[in-house]
Amino acid sequence: MTDNASSRTPRTPLTLLGTGAMGTALARAWLAAGHPVTVWNRTAARAEALAAEGAAVAATAAEAVAANRLVVACLLDDASLGEALEDAGLSGRDLVNLTTGTPAEGRTRAAWAEARGARFVDAGIMAVPPMIGQPGSGAYVFYSGSSELFEEHRDTLAVPADTRFVGTDPGFAALHDVALLSGMYGMFAGISHAFALVRGEDIPLNEFAPLLEGWLHAMAASVPQTAERLSTGDYTTGVVSNLAMQVQAGQRTLLRTADEQGVSRELLEPVMRLMRRRLDDGHGDEDTTGLVDLLTARPATT
Amino acid sequence: MTDNASSRTPRTPLTLLGTGAMGTALARAWLAAGHPVTVWNRTAARAEALAAEGAAVAATAAEAVAANRLVVACLLDDASLGEALEDAGLSGRDLVNLTTGTPAEGRTRAAWAEARGARFVDAGIMAVPPMIGQPGSGAYVFYSGSSELFEEHRDTLAVPADTRFVGTDPGFAALHDVALLSGMYGMFAGISHAFALVRGEDIPLNEFAPLLEGWLHAMAASVPQTAERLSTGDYTTGVVSNLAMQVQAGQRTLLRTADEQGVSRELLEPVMRLMRRRLDDGHGDEDTTGLVDLLTARPATT
Repeated sequence: MTDNASSRTPRTPLTLLGTGAMGTALARAWLAAGHPVTVWNRTAARAEALAAEGAAVAATAAEAVAANRLVVACLLDDASLGEALEDAGLSGRDLVNLTTGTPAEGRTRAAWAEARGARFVDAGIMAVPPMIGQPGSGAYVFYSGSSELFEEHRDTLAVPADTRFVGTDPGFAALHDVALLSGMYGMFAGISHAFALVRGEDIPLNEFAPLLEGWLHAMAASVPQTAERLSTGDYTTGVVSNLAMQVQAGQRTLLRTADEQGVSRELLEPVMRLMRRRLDDGHGDEDTTGLVDLLTARPATT
Repeated sequence: MTDNASSRTPRTPLTLLGTGAMGTALARAWLAAGHPVTVWNRTAARAEALAAEGAAVAATAAEAVAANRLVVACLLDDASLGEALEDAGLSGRDLVNLTTGTPAEGRTRAAWAEARGARFVDAGIMAVPPMIGQPGSGAYVFYSGSSELFEEHRDTLAVPADTRFVGTDPGFAALHDVALLSGMYGMFAGISHAFALVRGEDIPLNEFAPLLEGWLHAMAASVPQTAERLSTGDYTTGVVSNLAMQVQAGQRTLLRTADEQGVSRELLEPVMRLMRRRLDDGHGDEDTTGLVDLLTARPATT
């Protein structure tokens, strides 16, 4: 045992492009684990703060890329990545793209990197900066693209957060990331509406909150069943509260309660409207799984 | 110990109005626990099915109400309840209303019952019928209104599902019920959008589902903090992913991904629009708590 990380087994050196809040957290996690880290940031001052913690600071992105085979990018958006790497020599490099983007951007960037002789994985971070480098925080990162790159650097990539490789399609990391975030914003919309309903009444919010949270946990447990229904195409077997009951008995009550409490219907109405559409289409014996069909249906082109 | 329930301590006899799926489940739970139950249903055949299980079947709602002091109603809606009780003698009765309704309907019905000499509690059932009478199922019922009625019948009311008394305001049971259901539909909207994004790609839905479910559980843990922020009015201290970052970096990616994947924006756009509005109002340093303010803001009347 030694308390000097650098005297242990040599750690893979790496370059980190982008030292915003997330990039800085990543750099600190790798430095703390004994990895030599070269950093670059468009605004140099933010990178220089990491020099005191042991990072080498490169003057240009090209210089940073030249320093190490493993290059991790955590920039504002895909356009920033393109600009930063414009003059960099990518041949033989392993590029890990933690920059937020769409699946199509991930796929296009993968082809771009491969054409320049680099291996590429795209990534989506399911965490906020304070969770990085904290084992047990629940933070993890989706990766997709080159499985060879991922396997070779798996241990290094696992330093700041757990890893989840979700396929060789370089768009899949972003797709998983966006799907989970979109699900979260739906839940946040529901939470906002729920608090808006009770706020202003003589109801202690600290007593209401665990009821709402507990209910959401209980209802989130329906997700695997929705997946099963989508996979089999059977949306009716075992349904205990069908769409007809939900719409006819419940929907009027939910919308009228919003009106009574002076709460805008704008976050609730769209999902209610979709449920009515599915019922009107003759699917009253289903649960809500059929909403997925409506969301992906192409408009009629008559 | 005896295996004959009726030979134990006498159980409170009660009347149940309405033997739909939920009413039937409730009746069975009370019968199984040894309570004498008198049932009435507008369509008599559905009530008669319970006679074989030991229920007394009343020919009219008034006759059913006359049979017992404790009267539980589980009808289609508040109008059905008014019709059913039109000719019933309510003086001295304890009326427990499990019929779905709005908070205002609960308050109006409470005043109506009290004017006829009855005590009244309104209730909201957080369960589907198969969960009723199953200890450990997680089912529970919100009650509000007369605390005297609730205390006297607490043990009887606890037979089909756990009880949560949420205040003497008879509107609060429905308000809690509707708030939790509204939160759930927001989450279901998010879940539907998430599945719509990944469906049709080469992604096993049974592998995607636990990722989505786990993420929703993790993010639902933010509910108590939202309550705390609403209580203190401080929406900024300790925010790690602020609205400015969420809107500027994330929103474009989420909406463009929906477009790329051919998924309608209709469930995602409303919450995104509200986040932009809050940002444009100068609250970029907050988390999403301020959406609650926007939902309850009265339109300007200039």
